[in-house]
Amino acid sequence: MKFSVTVTLKKDVLDPQGKVVENTLKNMGMIDLKSIRQGKHFEIDINENDLKEAEKKINDMCRKLLVNLIIEDYKISKI
Amino acid sequence: MKFSVTVTLKKDVLDPQGKVVENTLKNMGMIDLKSIRQGKHFEIDINENDLKEAEKKINDMCRKLLVNLIIEDYKISKI
Repeated sequence: MKFSVTVTLKKDVLDPQGKVVENTLKNMGMIDLKSIRQGKHFEIDINENDLKEAEKKINDMCRKLLVNLIIEDYKISKI
Repeated sequence: MKFSVTVTLKKDVLDPQGKVVENTLKNMGMIDLKSIRQGKHFEIDINENDLKEAEKKINDMCRKLLVNLIIEDYKISKI
């Protein structure tokens, strides 16, 4: 079973990497750009046929390693 | 108009960062994990009301800065 996990910085957390990309794009002439924020993306393949059980395991991985819950949010979706 | 862009390494490109995460998770006891690959995620807000035009601009940003087309694929979706 395959899942995608998107990890983003919480709304109020400063995103210096995104800011650099934003400034660069603006300097390249993309004046319509309002804002850009960068995050992480994981594609996880797991040996588990029960959807509920698989989601629980993915959630576990996020909380134990992939996500810093203090400054980041995450979203799991089946693909 | 807001878009999300997901950038992933092409299937045959080695993903050392993902491999490290995979090994770490396995060492933590997640034996059901088959594979994990890491990518980037962007949330882009743009001053453009025409969907077609906005998508064209986002696509431009991807090709000119955000994505290395030689080793990476990308997917744009409206959010």
